[in-house]
Amino acid sequence: MADNLTKRADDYAQWYNDLVLKADLAEHSDVRGCMVIKPHGYGVWEKMRAALDGMFKETGHVNAYFPLFIPKSYLAKEASHVEGFAKECAVVTHYRLKSDPEHGVVVDPTAKLEEELIIRPTSETIIWNTYRGWVKSYRDLPLLINQWANVVRWEMRTRLFLRTAEFLWQEGHTAHATEKEAVEETERMLDVYARFAEEWLAIPVIRGVKTASERFAGAVETYCIEAMMQDGKALQAGTSHFLGQNFAKAFDVLFTNKENKQEHVWATSWGVSTRLVGALIMTHSDDNGLVLPPKLAPVQVAVVPIAKNAEQLEAIRAYITPTLTALRARGVTVKFDDDDTKKPGWKFAEYEFKGYPVRIAIGPRDMENGTVEVARRDTLEKQVMAVTDIDGKIEHLLSAIQENLFQKALALRERYTRAVDTYEEFKVAIEEGGFILAHWDGTAGTEEKVKNETKATIRCIPLEGDRTPGRCMVTGAPSERRVIFARAY
Amino acid sequence: MADNLTKRADDYAQWYNDLVLKADLAEHSDVRGCMVIKPHGYGVWEKMRAALDGMFKETGHVNAYFPLFIPKSYLAKEASHVEGFAKECAVVTHYRLKSDPEHGVVVDPTAKLEEELIIRPTSETIIWNTYRGWVKSYRDLPLLINQWANVVRWEMRTRLFLRTAEFLWQEGHTAHATEKEAVEETERMLDVYARFAEEWLAIPVIRGVKTASERFAGAVETYCIEAMMQDGKALQAGTSHFLGQNFAKAFDVLFTNKENKQEHVWATSWGVSTRLVGALIMTHSDDNGLVLPPKLAPVQVAVVPIAKNAEQLEAIRAYITPTLTALRARGVTVKFDDDDTKKPGWKFAEYEFKGYPVRIAIGPRDMENGTVEVARRDTLEKQVMAVTDIDGKIEHLLSAIQENLFQKALALRERYTRAVDTYEEFKVAIEEGGFILAHWDGTAGTEEKVKNETKATIRCIPLEGDRTPGRCMVTGAPSERRVIFARAY
Repeated sequence: MADNLTKRADDYAQWYNDLVLKADLAEHSDVRGCMVIKPHGYGVWEKMRAALDGMFKETGHVNAYFPLFIPKSYLAKEASHVEGFAKECAVVTHYRLKSDPEHGVVVDPTAKLEEELIIRPTSETIIWNTYRGWVKSYRDLPLLINQWANVVRWEMRTRLFLRTAEFLWQEGHTAHATEKEAVEETERMLDVYARFAEEWLAIPVIRGVKTASERFAGAVETYCIEAMMQDGKALQAGTSHFLGQNFAKAFDVLFTNKENKQEHVWATSWGVSTRLVGALIMTHSDDNGLVLPPKLAPVQVAVVPIAKNAEQLEAIRAYITPTLTALRARGVTVKFDDDDTKKPGWKFAEYEFKGYPVRIAIGPRDMENGTVEVARRDTLEKQVMAVTDIDGKIEHLLSAIQENLFQKALALRERYTRAVDTYEEFKVAIEEGGFILAHWDGTAGTEEKVKNETKATIRCIPLEGDRTPGRCMVTGAPSERRVIFARAY
Repeated sequence: MADNLTKRADDYAQWYNDLVLKADLAEHSDVRGCMVIKPHGYGVWEKMRAALDGMFKETGHVNAYFPLFIPKSYLAKEASHVEGFAKECAVVTHYRLKSDPEHGVVVDPTAKLEEELIIRPTSETIIWNTYRGWVKSYRDLPLLINQWANVVRWEMRTRLFLRTAEFLWQEGHTAHATEKEAVEETERMLDVYARFAEEWLAIPVIRGVKTASERFAGAVETYCIEAMMQDGKALQAGTSHFLGQNFAKAFDVLFTNKENKQEHVWATSWGVSTRLVGALIMTHSDDNGLVLPPKLAPVQVAVVPIAKNAEQLEAIRAYITPTLTALRARGVTVKFDDDDTKKPGWKFAEYEFKGYPVRIAIGPRDMENGTVEVARRDTLEKQVMAVTDIDGKIEHLLSAIQENLFQKALALRERYTRAVDTYEEFKVAIEEGGFILAHWDGTAGTEEKVKNETKATIRCIPLEGDRTPGRCMVTGAPSERRVIFARAY
C-alpha cells in the first residue's frame, strides 16, 4: 500500500489525501463537503473524545444536549455572530415530502416553515436562549456545560477532516457571575486543550491570543493553541473564547448577584473538532503510511502468527495467549490476527500502513527459542524479545513511542521557528515555511497587508516566551512583543 | 419538590411530564418538537450509551459516522422506505443567509441547492450508497458497523424523550454474504437489546416480531422488544430489522461470492434511542419523584454531611473520606455534597426527587457512634450502619436495588398480562390496560378493525411462550398462537 502513497516531499497535500483514503480513515460522501468517517478514523476520534471528556469532567463540567436547529431570528440577535456565520448556513425551509405523479418525490410546498431553521454552525444562540430560563440568582452559577455534537458550516473548499461542511466536535458553554471567573474558565480550558494536544496527540502547541480580525464571531477575546504540521504550515487546533456579556445581553440573561442587583451573566465557549484527526495525521505520519501515538491508537499492538497450518496456529495461540491476557489486564489493547484468508506479509504491510504502534510476529522458530519479534511503527525498528519479557516491556515501549513522536514534532517546530526583523527577510522566510516571529504594530491594516502580500496570517500573540518590545517589521511603529506569523490550514 | 408533583393515579401523563421537567431531565426548546436534554437526563443517556457501546463491541461491531444529510433522490430509491418517512422529513433547500435592509437577515435566494437535502430520519439510504464502494467480494463481508447520531422525524405530536422531532440514537447497519447470517445478526442484536433492557434498565421485555403493518419501512421482518409502563401501556423499547436484499438492490450493492458469482448483499439495521430514558422514568419512578436503577444513575451514592459549622464539616469529611475513597476504588460513583449554601433537608429532598439510588447522611452523633445513616431510594427505607461496614455493604445494596426494581416491574407486568378469548372480553380488558394475549387471524383487516375500535395495536407476535393454536377472537378464523395487544406509547 505504501508503494502507492504519494511522497510527502513530492506533494504534501496529495500525500495527506492519499493517506486518509488508503488508510481507511475517511472518504468523501456524495453529499457536497460531507465526509464519511470510516471505522479506523472514527476509532481515533472515539479515543480523543473519551480522553477529552474525562478532562472536562475532572474540571467540573457536565454534558447536555441542545437542538440541532436554530431559529433564523436567534442567529441574528448577536450582530457580529450572524455576520460571521450567515454565509455558510444550511437552511431548513420545509418539513415534508410528497409524491408527485410527474416528478417522483418532491418537497411539499404546503409544508413550509413559518420561520426558517438553521442547522447549528455553533450553538451559542440556542444555548443562551435556554440559559435565560436556568439562571435567576448567583446560586445558579456557574453553569459548566459541554455538548458533543455535529455542526454544519457550508464551506466551499473542503478537505477530509480539516475542513468539511459537517463535522463532529464538542462545544463547551459556560456561564459565570463575574468577568474574572469567566476569564479564568477561558484560560483553564485553553490549558486543558494544550495538555490534551501535548500529552495525547503528542503535538506541541503554542498558546496564544488571536488578533481582532481572527476572533470568533461574538467573542471579546479568542485564545487558541497553534500547531505546526510537517510542511511547516500552521493549524489551529483548538479555541477558547471569552464572550464577555455579549450573548447574555443579546438573550436577556440576567441574574441577581450577592448584592441583590441584576446583572448580565458572563460567558465562555470553547471547542475542538474532528479537525484534530487531520492534525494528528499531518504531524506524525510518514511516507510509509499512518503513524498514531499509542494513547490514541484504536489498537496498540497487533499480533501476527506465522503459521503454515491450523495446528501451528493453535500452538502459537497457546504460546502467546497468557502474555496477551496479561497485557490486556494492564489496559493495553491487543489484536491477535488469526484471519487465515490473509498472508502474514500482507498483514505486516497493513498494520504498518494503518499506523498500529507495535506489531508482534511469532513463527515456529520463535516458539523454539522462547522469543517473539517486536516492531515499532515510529522508527520501524525490529527487535527480538524473550516472550517472558513482553508483558513487562510493552507498556514502556508504548510510552517511548508516544514520547518519541512528541519530541520529533517539537524538534521540527523548533527548527522551523525563527525571528526576522525586516519585511524583506520575512518574505523570504515565509516561502520556506514554518513559524516566523516578527514585530507587528497591532493594526488590522498591517495584518491585512501582510496577508494579501504573503498569504501569511498572524496565528497568535503568544502567551509565553520573549516579551521584548521592538518595531513593526512593516511600518516601523512600536510593537510590544513579537507575534507568530505563518501560512495556515 | 415531590409536593408539587402530580400523582400517578390522578394523571399519569401529567405526572410524567412534571417529573421530566422538575427532576431537571429535559425541557422543551423554542424549536418545535425539539427538546433540550439537561445534564441530569443526559447523564443517564451517557451511561446507557457506554453500556450499549460495550455490548456492541463485544459482539464484534465498530463505530463509524455517516453524513447528516441525505440527497432527496436517495431516500426515494427504496419505495416503501420513502413512503414511510416522506411525511416527516426536514428539508434543507438553501445554504446561505444574507442581510436585507428591510427584513434583517433573510435566506439568500441565489444560494438554492440543486437537489434538496433531507436531514436523516434514519441512515439506511446514505449508508447503503456508501457500502457499494466498500464491498467487492465475500472477503469484505460482514460489515458490522454502528453509528451514534442525531436524527430528525418531523412529528406533529411530541412528548419529552418519548417522541421528539430530533432525537439521539444508535443505528447499526450490517452487511452479510448470506440470508442466514443476516437473520442471525438481527436476532443477536435483539438479544443484546433484551439483555440491556433487563440487566441495565431493569425493565422486563417481551421479544417478538412485528406484524406487517408495524414493520420498519423497507424491512422484510422487524423484531422488537416491548415493555409495559406503570399505567399498563406498552412501549416499544428497541427494534432490529432484517432488511433482506432490499437496500442492496436499491443501491446496487453486489459482491462476488465464494462460487465466484455476483449476488446482492444481505442487510440488517437496529436501533434504540433517547426514548429509552422515557421508558426508564415511566417504569420505575413514583409519586416521590425519579427512581433510577443504580447501574444507570449518573451518581449512585450522595453523601450529605450535617454540620453546624465549617469545623464540623471538616471533621465529617475526615471521618468519611477513607470510606468514600474505598467505594470509588470499587467503581461506585459518589458525590460528597459540601455545598454550604443549601441545608441538609433541602439536599435530602433533592436527592430523593432526582432518583439518587442511595443517600448517606452523617451528623455529629454518627461520628460519636461510628455510624452513618443509609437511605435507599427504591423503598425509602433507612438504616443505621457502622461506618466500617459501608465499603463492604454498599455494592450489595446497589445490586439489591437494581434487582428489586426489575422484580417490581416484572410483577406489575405479570399482574397486567392476561389472556382473553372473545372480542367482548377483549374490549373490557383493554380498558383496564396491560398486555392482552389473544388469538388473531393474521390479517391486516382484523388488526385494523381492532385498532380503530379499541385503540389497541398488536405489539408483537412473541418469540417465546405458549404456542397453542386457537381461533381469532374477532373473526373465529384459525390462529397459530396468541399475540400481544395493548395500547401503546
